[in-house]
Amino acid sequence: MDYDSRNPFARILRGELPSVKVYEDEHTLAIMDIMPQAEGHVLVLPKEPAVELFTLSDDGAAACIRTTKKVAAAVKTAMAAPGVMVAQFNGAAAGQTVPHVHFHIVPRHQAAALRPHAAEPADSAKLREYADRIIAALADPQSSQ
Amino acid sequence: MDYDSRNPFARILRGELPSVKVYEDEHTLAIMDIMPQAEGHVLVLPKEPAVELFTLSDDGAAACIRTTKKVAAAVKTAMAAPGVMVAQFNGAAAGQTVPHVHFHIVPRHQAAALRPHAAEPADSAKLREYADRIIAALADPQSSQ
Repeated sequence: MDYDSRNPFARILRGELPSVKVYEDEHTLAIMDIMPQAEGHVLVLPKEPAVELFTLSDDGAAACIRTTKKVAAAVKTAMAAPGVMVAQFNGAAAGQTVPHVHFHIVPRHQAAALRPHAAEPADSAKLREYADRIIAALADPQSSQ
Repeated sequence: MDYDSRNPFARILRGELPSVKVYEDEHTLAIMDIMPQAEGHVLVLPKEPAVELFTLSDDGAAACIRTTKKVAAAVKTAMAAPGVMVAQFNGAAAGQTVPHVHFHIVPRHQAAALRPHAAEPADSAKLREYADRIIAALADPQSSQ
């Protein structure tokens, strides 16, 4: 599938659509998922345009997993979550809803059922609150050791 | 959590337990999941001992996602799957069942429900057949472009 630069994540990366950012570096951006499967659900996007993992460069993939690792540790701390699920969907058949590669970071609490993917929009004040907690945890080197 | 070198993946990496291998390099090993969530379910393991993504080195994480990318493309081709899910669980609350970091590669077909994680052992002849198909796709540079 060719990359369509009008997709929402491309527009967020260009600053044309708003997002609640928790982390950014040269190669990646991490934002709150606005249709979260659980409280504190974060998405990691490469800045490189690629629809699926298969067409992302090895360097782009390495940058994504580095950011995912760092942000997932902060999400675990910020949300006091005993578990963290990382997921990356390729193709609509796998549940991909936006045609720009992204890694989901979903905090998991024992026995808490996940909401369906991309089903219900979140309260924006809550997103801001969770983002602030995650940003604070990112700034704390003791987080999630 | 401290790393327990008696876990099944550590034993597979040392050659003490059998596995159906589809790919190996200096830093990673990819094997068929023996309790698959779908036909063609593969696991990617770092050779570095780490329980969760948080304690895996950045280089180890980069090696895992590189192998995951390569093997996921071959799984897509081999299983003629329109979608591929990549998932990595940290902690029992997130569904992690073996305390050695691993990335799941699960082929997805529209509307096909996944079996529960780690629920039912697979037929070993089928695992071998799928492994052979994935190995053939890995050897084909035209695979999944």
